[in-house]
Amino acid sequence: MFPRCLSRTVLGTSISLIYRRPHTTRIPFNVAGIYPPIATPFTENEQVDYGKLQANLLHYREIPFRGFVVQGSNGEYAYLTKEERVEVVRRVREVVPKEKLIMAGSGCESTQATIQMTLEMAKSGADAVLVVTPSYYKGKMTSSALVHHYIKVADHSPVPVVLYSVPANTGLDLPVDAIITLSQHPNIVGLKDSGGDITRIGLIIHKTKQSGFQILAGSAGFLLAGYSVGAVGGVCALANVLGAQVCELERLCINNHWQEAQELQHRLIEPNTAVTRKFGIPGLKQAMEWFGFHGGFCRSPLLPLTEQEINELRNVFTNNGWL
Amino acid sequence: MFPRCLSRTVLGTSISLIYRRPHTTRIPFNVAGIYPPIATPFTENEQVDYGKLQANLLHYREIPFRGFVVQGSNGEYAYLTKEERVEVVRRVREVVPKEKLIMAGSGCESTQATIQMTLEMAKSGADAVLVVTPSYYKGKMTSSALVHHYIKVADHSPVPVVLYSVPANTGLDLPVDAIITLSQHPNIVGLKDSGGDITRIGLIIHKTKQSGFQILAGSAGFLLAGYSVGAVGGVCALANVLGAQVCELERLCINNHWQEAQELQHRLIEPNTAVTRKFGIPGLKQAMEWFGFHGGFCRSPLLPLTEQEINELRNVFTNNGWL
Amino acid sequence: MFPRCLSRTVLGTSISLIYRRPHTTRIPFNVAGIYPPIATPFTENEQVDYGKLQANLLHYREIPFRGFVVQGSNGEYAYLTKEERVEVVRRVREVVPKEKLIMAGSGCESTQATIQMTLEMAKSGADAVLVVTPSYYKGKMTSSALVHHYIKVADHSPVPVVLYSVPANTGLDLPVDAIITLSQHPNIVGLKDSGGDITRIGLIIHKTKQSGFQILAGSAGFLLAGYSVGAVGGVCALANVLGAQVCELERLCINNHWQEAQELQHRLIEPNTAVTRKFGIPGLKQAMEWFGFHGGFCRSPLLPLTEQEINELRNVFTNNGWL
Amino acid sequence: MFPRCLSRTVLGTSISLIYRRPHTTRIPFNVAGIYPPIATPFTENEQVDYGKLQANLLHYREIPFRGFVVQGSNGEYAYLTKEERVEVVRRVREVVPKEKLIMAGSGCESTQATIQMTLEMAKSGADAVLVVTPSYYKGKMTSSALVHHYIKVADHSPVPVVLYSVPANTGLDLPVDAIITLSQHPNIVGLKDSGGDITRIGLIIHKTKQSGFQILAGSAGFLLAGYSVGAVGGVCALANVLGAQVCELERLCINNHWQEAQELQHRLIEPNTAVTRKFGIPGLKQAMEWFGFHGGFCRSPLLPLTEQEINELRNVFTNNGWL
Repeated sequence: MFPRCLSRTVLGTSISLIYRRPHTTRIPFNVAGIYPPIATPFTENEQVDYGKLQANLLHYREIPFRGFVVQGSNGEYAYLTKEERVEVVRRVREVVPKEKLIMAGSGCESTQATIQMTLEMAKSGADAVLVVTPSYYKGKMTSSALVHHYIKVADHSPVPVVLYSVPANTGLDLPVDAIITLSQHPNIVGLKDSGGDITRIGLIIHKTKQSGFQILAGSAGFLLAGYSVGAVGGVCALANVLGAQVCELERLCINNHWQEAQELQHRLIEPNTAVTRKFGIPGLKQAMEWFGFHGGFCRSPLLPLTEQEINELRNVFTNNGWL
Repeated sequence: MFPRCLSRTVLGTSISLIYRRPHTTRIPFNVAGIYPPIATPFTENEQVDYGKLQANLLHYREIPFRGFVVQGSNGEYAYLTKEERVEVVRRVREVVPKEKLIMAGSGCESTQATIQMTLEMAKSGADAVLVVTPSYYKGKMTSSALVHHYIKVADHSPVPVVLYSVPANTGLDLPVDAIITLSQHPNIVGLKDSGGDITRIGLIIHKTKQSGFQILAGSAGFLLAGYSVGAVGGVCALANVLGAQVCELERLCINNHWQEAQELQHRLIEPNTAVTRKFGIPGLKQAMEWFGFHGGFCRSPLLPLTEQEINELRNVFTNNGWL
Repeated sequence: MFPRCLSRTVLGTSISLIYRRPHTTRIPFNVAGIYPPIATPFTENEQVDYGKLQANLLHYREIPFRGFVVQGSNGEYAYLTKEERVEVVRRVREVVPKEKLIMAGSGCESTQATIQMTLEMAKSGADAVLVVTPSYYKGKMTSSALVHHYIKVADHSPVPVVLYSVPANTGLDLPVDAIITLSQHPNIVGLKDSGGDITRIGLIIHKTKQSGFQILAGSAGFLLAGYSVGAVGGVCALANVLGAQVCELERLCINNHWQEAQELQHRLIEPNTAVTRKFGIPGLKQAMEWFGFHGGFCRSPLLPLTEQEINELRNVFTNNGWL
Repeated sequence: MFPRCLSRTVLGTSISLIYRRPHTTRIPFNVAGIYPPIATPFTENEQVDYGKLQANLLHYREIPFRGFVVQGSNGEYAYLTKEERVEVVRRVREVVPKEKLIMAGSGCESTQATIQMTLEMAKSGADAVLVVTPSYYKGKMTSSALVHHYIKVADHSPVPVVLYSVPANTGLDLPVDAIITLSQHPNIVGLKDSGGDITRIGLIIHKTKQSGFQILAGSAGFLLAGYSVGAVGGVCALANVLGAQVCELERLCINNHWQEAQELQHRLIEPNTAVTRKFGIPGLKQAMEWFGFHGGFCRSPLLPLTEQEINELRNVFTNNGWL
């Protein structure tokens, strides 16, 4: 299945290879908008709870999301088997209307596993794939290695590829020079940046905008700032909980209502930090329960919140006027 | 000179002391606007070149700066003697019109040295002091230690105090909870945040705005993003070189011209990085020479740029349309 | 296959659970000695080259290793499929004499996947398993979460468990307090520490020695220092290349020939750094070729060394008198 | 006073300058042995308490120290004025017997200030100076900048220079290549390494031993490991408290009693961490009081320990059998 010629190319060519954009123009593919990176509810026995997953998606219908990221970091993709990863995408596609984009996380550590997963995700109904940086051998994940990796994935992918940099989990920030090179590939359409360094994000936008490359903020914490420097949307964990509010922030930014946008942004920062950096996925799932969604259990080794953590989490939502 | 009672207070009180804002209201003191943290030109023999310093200030008269930061990090304050630090402020005050604010860096490692320097800066004409976090014993610079430090400095300072967090130099980020506590002190009026974490900056503004506390972006790289979340200005190394352009960015932000602001911001990011993180003060001083200012020599151990670095630096300004 | 009761236990118990050693004594299991974490040679097409793998193992027969680590980080385990991981262990067991220990890396991100892999490794002939810290959600991999994870794995493992902390790859150092707690589990017999903080290693030995827990240095760079503070051996990438010399260093340490040990240790540091931190697995595999072993190709995204890197690598071995 | 020609040299020469050792041989100067980096006791009013300082030194006479480090990091040198720094050295010299080495910390941020301080320290009776890396502009403190800095200091110093790398305080590790270059300067005799990376320390010793350069461990936590790879002594905060025991560890190492050395080392790790990384100088000073020395007050912003911290600190000494 994995083509013999690819490996030859990998090992036989000089690592100074820089992808040159072919004369064919980029297929227009617009990723602008807000996406929740949906959580994967588990049963008490740590099995995927497809019923709760689908119930959440039905509930999300009322919210003007552009689509859904399935198996971003918040989907606990690292804890799913290969088969589960594909099956979850298939089940999501069944429920989600055609006009909503499904962006499926297909990143694995090896290039060949990433390509295989990408093919399967596309077959299961993903409209695009989100490919996290491989990171285990981080000392050797140079710009050159990452450029080779992504080019091979994009060359083989039947659907558009979105790069994904999430240093809090991977310990690796996809370098700006690699992003600029990759932005010229016709099948690489954008970047989800979860690092939140707004100067870096502004620079990436500045250096790639002429090729139609698009940037999505990887968190609701810097969504307004992201729009201010030219991002076109966000993949925001908080949108699992306060989806309508995150979409409202998008609307305010797009329509230049900066003062109201600022006020709303301010009230979203603490809840966002609480369901990401501070309490992680267990915090996200707990908060979902309060807002009518099904968070469900986490898979081990993630632990459920303690009583004290639950109280702290609730206070964050209460103090900012959301509960 | 240093009051005996102070030390007693320091060592005798519980560290859980939290400053409570007195009923007297904050003296209105507005720091909004753009400030260059002015460079200190040296002669070839590494003496302060007061002639060049004053020539720069005369040249800056044409630019609508709110004022000048004297002895921020870019002023090589760490390389000046105590006497030089004070003398530079005195000389700047002589040249700068009264309506321009002079914010003088008075931070030292010990609390008592910081208080003494603060008193001298005020006597030499500073309108406010900018107090960097002490950082050598960073393992013990807890929120509590820093809160005590700043309260003592603010209590003794005849002029308003602006907090200064610059983790790239100090290895220490002034914690958000310490900032919130300190924002209630009537003589602590704002924060210069050079870390650039826009989520953090948004949160600080959200948590302190009701007390009139003000935030200045510590770099031109995230000035637009800073304004978008509620900052009121910036202390920007790049303003030593492209002062009019940085003030133009301020004007665009204040007047809600976000599209033009974004375009201008984009062109300033690389030059800003070049004169700060990438080439440091030697890069800043080199670039000043190209724009009609006097950068002069640096004090050792800072090395001048190599030929190759100068070329790279020039390219950054050329590629963004400034040279 | 995965027992239903386990999940219940996980989610149902308080996280303050601390494992208490039962009255049954620890099964004596001595891991002392030197182990190469064997490389996995690939063909040009990135398939596992079992022929070369077995040839290496035959070649290693002449060296007094205590055993072999199969699928430590240097085995590119992160790039192998589940099936390949198990198959490699099976093939190694076929060639390696019974008296040599096979320690198989069975760590996965989720607890249940780690347990399954552990069961399969044991069935394929592993004498012990080496379990790397899960790390993707590093912000939530607290001591408590890691203690729960390892206790469940150890409870289910038919063979002894060795903990594995390798912060250069995982961005996570298994906390000392977690190690101390886990050292009391009768089926957790030791720790491979690749972080190299010798003060920390000394402390761990001090706090766990009464329970018979054993520490293996995770690199030849601090093997002598490790022995000096009480480590009992090492899992050393460099032993793939200079196995006899690493075993000679062990002999010198055990027999108190500290002066000669020091001289030998000194000559191993640079080669060790070259095949680990500096040039990574591609460097390790290249060096293996020079010493009569088969390194083979790497799997993508790891890139082969450039000509210049190969020269640098060779110089390191030449300058220290090994080539 | 500061020679004009120096600055010319600094700014006029290429930064690729590498110091070449002259034909004159190194003045033999042996730094081997144990040194406490003495604490500076303050009165309740934060004045230097010279009486307590001298009482400590008299008390230390019974311990076979090689000498004393005055104004290492533990001496709160960063909180002393220039005049105090010199005066403390003068007072120490008055009390300490001639045969004990006084190594005075003379590092400042600028090269010229460091040279001046070095001259004054030598005049006040220091036998050698310990020069910490300048670090405020850490982004520009390249190997080249640091080599230039130290060569100029060593060229001007009337006494031998010991390099000092303490990344926990400075955020900067003096690079190995800079150390190797500097080891060839006839007036640079050694390095105090407080980073504790034993692989790095072994490498430095390996690469510099032929020139007679000497390494001192910068902490009692890795003193045994340091000796095992060839260090010749230590500058250990813990020696302010448990000086006889640290000297006993030295004796055991020198005389190849590795088993006893290991046991003693193990019992020193936690107390050492407690008076350094964990509780810092306030912890060091508190522990001194329990062992018959005068710790005295700290200068602000360092806070005294809380009751709970004092109890934790005491437990560390009790649990390891020292109290």
